[in-house]
Amino acid sequence: MTTFEEITPRLETLAIEVPSWAYGNSGTRFKVFGSRGTPRTVQEKIDDAAQVHRFTGLAPAVALHIPWDLVDDFAALRSYAEDRGLRIGTINSNTFQDDVYKFGSLAAADPGVRRTAIDHHLRCVEIMTATGSRDLKIWLADGSNYPGQNDLRQRQDTLAESLTEIYGQLSGDQRLVLEYKFFEPAFYATDVPDWGTSYVQVAALGERAMVCLDTGHHAPGTNIEFIVAQLLRLGKLGAFDFNSRFYADDDLIVGAADPFQLFRIMAEVVRGGGLDPATGVAFMLDQCHNIEDKIPGQIRSVLNVAEMTARALLIDREALATAQAANDVLTANGVLMDAFYTDVRRDLAAWRDSKGLPADPMAAFAESGYLQQVAADRVGGQQAGWGA
Amino acid sequence: MTTFEEITPRLETLAIEVPSWAYGNSGTRFKVFGSRGTPRTVQEKIDDAAQVHRFTGLAPAVALHIPWDLVDDFAALRSYAEDRGLRIGTINSNTFQDDVYKFGSLAAADPGVRRTAIDHHLRCVEIMTATGSRDLKIWLADGSNYPGQNDLRQRQDTLAESLTEIYGQLSGDQRLVLEYKFFEPAFYATDVPDWGTSYVQVAALGERAMVCLDTGHHAPGTNIEFIVAQLLRLGKLGAFDFNSRFYADDDLIVGAADPFQLFRIMAEVVRGGGLDPATGVAFMLDQCHNIEDKIPGQIRSVLNVAEMTARALLIDREALATAQAANDVLTANGVLMDAFYTDVRRDLAAWRDSKGLPADPMAAFAESGYLQQVAADRVGGQQAGWGA
Amino acid sequence: MTTFEEITPRLETLAIEVPSWAYGNSGTRFKVFGSRGTPRTVQEKIDDAAQVHRFTGLAPAVALHIPWDLVDDFAALRSYAEDRGLRIGTINSNTFQDDVYKFGSLAAADPGVRRTAIDHHLRCVEIMTATGSRDLKIWLADGSNYPGQNDLRQRQDTLAESLTEIYGQLSGDQRLVLEYKFFEPAFYATDVPDWGTSYVQVAALGERAMVCLDTGHHAPGTNIEFIVAQLLRLGKLGAFDFNSRFYADDDLIVGAADPFQLFRIMAEVVRGGGLDPATGVAFMLDQCHNIEDKIPGQIRSVLNVAEMTARALLIDREALATAQAANDVLTANGVLMDAFYTDVRRDLAAWRDSKGLPADPMAAFAESGYLQQVAADRVGGQQAGWGA
Amino acid sequence: MTTFEEITPRLETLAIEVPSWAYGNSGTRFKVFGSRGTPRTVQEKIDDAAQVHRFTGLAPAVALHIPWDLVDDFAALRSYAEDRGLRIGTINSNTFQDDVYKFGSLAAADPGVRRTAIDHHLRCVEIMTATGSRDLKIWLADGSNYPGQNDLRQRQDTLAESLTEIYGQLSGDQRLVLEYKFFEPAFYATDVPDWGTSYVQVAALGERAMVCLDTGHHAPGTNIEFIVAQLLRLGKLGAFDFNSRFYADDDLIVGAADPFQLFRIMAEVVRGGGLDPATGVAFMLDQCHNIEDKIPGQIRSVLNVAEMTARALLIDREALATAQAANDVLTANGVLMDAFYTDVRRDLAAWRDSKGLPADPMAAFAESGYLQQVAADRVGGQQAGWGA
Repeated sequence: MTTFEEITPRLETLAIEVPSWAYGNSGTRFKVFGSRGTPRTVQEKIDDAAQVHRFTGLAPAVALHIPWDLVDDFAALRSYAEDRGLRIGTINSNTFQDDVYKFGSLAAADPGVRRTAIDHHLRCVEIMTATGSRDLKIWLADGSNYPGQNDLRQRQDTLAESLTEIYGQLSGDQRLVLEYKFFEPAFYATDVPDWGTSYVQVAALGERAMVCLDTGHHAPGTNIEFIVAQLLRLGKLGAFDFNSRFYADDDLIVGAADPFQLFRIMAEVVRGGGLDPATGVAFMLDQCHNIEDKIPGQIRSVLNVAEMTARALLIDREALATAQAANDVLTANGVLMDAFYTDVRRDLAAWRDSKGLPADPMAAFAESGYLQQVAADRVGGQQAGWGA
Repeated sequence: MTTFEEITPRLETLAIEVPSWAYGNSGTRFKVFGSRGTPRTVQEKIDDAAQVHRFTGLAPAVALHIPWDLVDDFAALRSYAEDRGLRIGTINSNTFQDDVYKFGSLAAADPGVRRTAIDHHLRCVEIMTATGSRDLKIWLADGSNYPGQNDLRQRQDTLAESLTEIYGQLSGDQRLVLEYKFFEPAFYATDVPDWGTSYVQVAALGERAMVCLDTGHHAPGTNIEFIVAQLLRLGKLGAFDFNSRFYADDDLIVGAADPFQLFRIMAEVVRGGGLDPATGVAFMLDQCHNIEDKIPGQIRSVLNVAEMTARALLIDREALATAQAANDVLTANGVLMDAFYTDVRRDLAAWRDSKGLPADPMAAFAESGYLQQVAADRVGGQQAGWGA
Repeated sequence: MTTFEEITPRLETLAIEVPSWAYGNSGTRFKVFGSRGTPRTVQEKIDDAAQVHRFTGLAPAVALHIPWDLVDDFAALRSYAEDRGLRIGTINSNTFQDDVYKFGSLAAADPGVRRTAIDHHLRCVEIMTATGSRDLKIWLADGSNYPGQNDLRQRQDTLAESLTEIYGQLSGDQRLVLEYKFFEPAFYATDVPDWGTSYVQVAALGERAMVCLDTGHHAPGTNIEFIVAQLLRLGKLGAFDFNSRFYADDDLIVGAADPFQLFRIMAEVVRGGGLDPATGVAFMLDQCHNIEDKIPGQIRSVLNVAEMTARALLIDREALATAQAANDVLTANGVLMDAFYTDVRRDLAAWRDSKGLPADPMAAFAESGYLQQVAADRVGGQQAGWGA
Repeated sequence: MTTFEEITPRLETLAIEVPSWAYGNSGTRFKVFGSRGTPRTVQEKIDDAAQVHRFTGLAPAVALHIPWDLVDDFAALRSYAEDRGLRIGTINSNTFQDDVYKFGSLAAADPGVRRTAIDHHLRCVEIMTATGSRDLKIWLADGSNYPGQNDLRQRQDTLAESLTEIYGQLSGDQRLVLEYKFFEPAFYATDVPDWGTSYVQVAALGERAMVCLDTGHHAPGTNIEFIVAQLLRLGKLGAFDFNSRFYADDDLIVGAADPFQLFRIMAEVVRGGGLDPATGVAFMLDQCHNIEDKIPGQIRSVLNVAEMTARALLIDREALATAQAANDVLTANGVLMDAFYTDVRRDLAAWRDSKGLPADPMAAFAESGYLQQVAADRVGGQQAGWGA
């Protein structure tokens, strides 16, 4: 079996983007609970994100959500982040909260609505240029609640037109990543419901258009690691939105609901070369901390990804290939499980320690008093949230 | 086959409760879209509910949600409703929106929280007495998002204690109906997740405790009509919360997603005697009209229930029994499908016409100008909604 | 609304393929029940298939399953079918019942196994030429039961190579249609699990390679009509395998589990031009009649497709487009439902009558005495079945 | 945290029943693959089962399936097993493979069929007495494939009558355990589809009637550990049928698909006292080894249960209770995960070694040459299987 020492060089390249919105309040349609110390501004969100990186060394980028994170001066915001050791990651457009988007955005039947939505994306591209962000991530709430409400076929063509205009505005190494989602907020048909649809849309755009895979956006039972393998094979896996779920798009801490699934996903990432930075896969969290503390929730998530990546790297690939070639089902499965069941936590602690990071980031953060400090400091103002 | 004339006496007994909250704004965690003319007060909700009854003759009761519909004088509210031809239906308690309920209510670990939640229910019982409402419906958001968060076993016992105290305060023919839900807002474990749990809890309480079946609260693939048959057999089907769904608890218009399922449910209601008012089954709508007009959405829903009830009544029970006894699968299924495929809309229109009701309630309501009137009248104030 | 007379010309073009194996015994892993009169030979299967066409006028082709339907002289079999008014439809390869395929066929790790599987397909192509069949349908049982058992990524490449060799042997207007399936018999990963995978595989092959959509091969909740619309848009919908299901791949009579879904599927077929024979969509049944009579089960299925096609053709497209453009959700949905709820059975009976066909095919077949006749005649021999 | 030494006394009580049919051939409706060395007789199955116990020390009982394991002299069979260190465990009735059961057994409409099915169960009770078996397990394939086929309501009453007669024949400490199953082989309605139905049926019978929970028999997303907790609370958890699944009732090796779920289940077993032999919970495997070696598959399964039981026992219950009481979500979850992530394999190996068992049962069995020996010895005859 591979040793931990052998895998550390590859662990060093792991970089996880944290989402600015994870530090704001979130909830369900029933209730959004607030909590003391929640950021009021994008700067405070970046402060919180910096804590995650400070204690884990694994989260050097923070993704923004536009318009939630709109500021007048994005160059200044970039500097603000860089001063705290972070870069600005993916720019996430948001075309689901303005009243104009009630019946869709980039795929809407109404040309005026589409214009508004496209213009919003063009503004996002400007923000990317100003912040040095590489990726424009598009997740669309577009869809319908009742059969007959929309012309499913027409909306695919309409969407393709909208995406083409946006894609045309990208420059340099900027990329467009298109997310798919099985359902919610649309309850009958979603305009980009599955990886196949996202793939055919981005394949029509060009090389710098890729698919974004959110681990919570699939039908029950879907084999997600298969999709990972397929998209890496096709050269179209642009990004992950990591989270976990027992039911629908629950947006729980990644690895919390099914750690073995996260392991299998990371095993396919490793197998398909996705850990190689040249492949361009962005590893992002996209979660809601509805009832748990947000910063520790993010730290826990980053650690989960790292732990499962380590286990995936520990797979004895040679033994696996031998067993697979021999159709020795139990041995092949056993090789995989051996890596999964290996407790890497002590090795990872030592590795962190060797880099001047806390061996136990959760405990170290708790002891830092940061949460108590922001609870005391952040009084008044409007706590950030989804604003639904 | 049974004729339409033969079934009209049984259709006459059909009474569907509409929920006050269906007339307020609702949405998803992503966005709640407002609309012109949305009620600001419970009285305006009752005004809207009265329209549904006026145009269908089928919706003589309006259910309330406490605290959303709190007023100082419930006796006056009862009169307000009666003046508009409605009675006050089920009182729905709500223990999921106060900050104190972040980690549960009747099943919470914290005794102080439980006290608050029980007291809220006792207040609801007082409201029932003041309004002449028969049923206290309890739907609990209680549950957990992460394994280990709660002691699943302990919470069942705690819940039983809380329910016992509430049940003890009921008097006369007042009933407690306990709703179950598969998931949401809890994303790991729900404290009353299935009919079995609701059944064992209410069976422990006594005769006037019953199960509430919400058609959207089941795992994918669940055979809901089987549960209907089983609960009627056990004498424990207290109420329906009607709606429909393609995915999770989508709360779409009942019958919109799977009209054949609604037909099968009503067929088991008929088979099990549930249409007989003496059985005490409350037929209630519990829906969200996120993007469609709310009052027409309710009218459409009431009509759907009536249409499927009519079809269910048309089943040739004798031919069905004969085919079932002979294990003649195709004939038995054919007898059922024959009733389902029968277009009862013209007969129902004539029936309505004979009772002085509009033959086409959707068209008649549209022509009434009510929506335009309330859009003009209801200016200013705070539109009602879930207040999440 | 469109009248029935207006749609009859388009109904005339409807042709449904029946599968030879539907007339043999089938069942579950628990038990295959036999029945009297079950065919022993492919000729007897064709005799039974001819009954379906005789009583419905809608089923002029019979699909074969190789090796179940292997004969020495396929030209003679073609004549046998043509003498009974049928043509030979799709040739379905079968690479899941020989012991050599235990760990896969076209995607297997073992080159010898792949060679055997490819050769089997080349033989199928010869049978196509001999029988005048247009389509080679490939459904693969390939996959794995345990994580680690197979190299998911490698198998996609291997499969692509195998398909390329087979595709290269097609001539004239012969086509390859690749079916996908969510799971079963593989219980961890299926090598062609979804429409996206089938699409990328056939797109790489060329114009005469298409996707086959089996209505029972999706994850719970999947919006199948969306896939229909998407594949028609991409010009890649080659064939349907019609059946229905409540749970997994139940292979029930099409339309039996969710008639509204079948209606929505046919509505998208109509919308996307799929009823036009030039589009080349093959409408095939693929069902198991485990407990019901097989020939009447097929007749019922063919009628269900025709009834839902008629309803789909009745949709008032103009009114629908108007309501969609106005985002009038309830009206748009209402236009669709109006067509669905229209009882077309009497009109279809008159249409059949006008063509010299029985108004009630189910009753006419029952009265024909065919089942009693074959039960008496087909004594001895080995009843056809899946041979699992 | 609890130490491994502290938990060994409780591990000592763990006893897992293996099913005789796991050593025969099994498969899907598509194909049952044979393998060399498969038992031909129940005695050879017991020989194989004895290997599992010999190498693990955890599997002292073998369950039988009647009629698959019918012998003339069950007392002799009991001795045969005891001579190999095994006792006869649960007697599983089988009323799904005789032609007479095509439309049901204990719940069938036909009184003659019910009589046959009841008599079969009475014979099973005699076998229990002869073999010293405590439990009669009833799993019913009863159900329907099409709506209307059966009278759902009537069948519950019919089933209750049949069970009452069978239950009345039990004596001493004999028990009846009633299994439930979501679907398959019935594809529309199953007569005992969920724990609620099983519970109300056995509760009506009496104290020695219990529920059997098969881990593969639930709807997608069902929280199985909740059901475990609830049934233990109600004193009605009679038995487990362990296996695992990604999709439907896949019958994979327990723990293979979702090891974290198995851990959570065992955690609730521990929490609810289910490990205490006095509670009477039977821990049985019910799996199919379609493509993997059967005896190693059983060894792997037994080890998986033991490993997850050990991890569940390691949970720091005090720390968990403290965090739960404080609603400290992340800490409570962290306490649970800490136990799950602990690699107990080395400790378990040492524990086995201390008891004279092989440290690595999988390797030791492979080295024993048993598989090669039976492959050489068991030539000719009819390999055992489901006989579907």
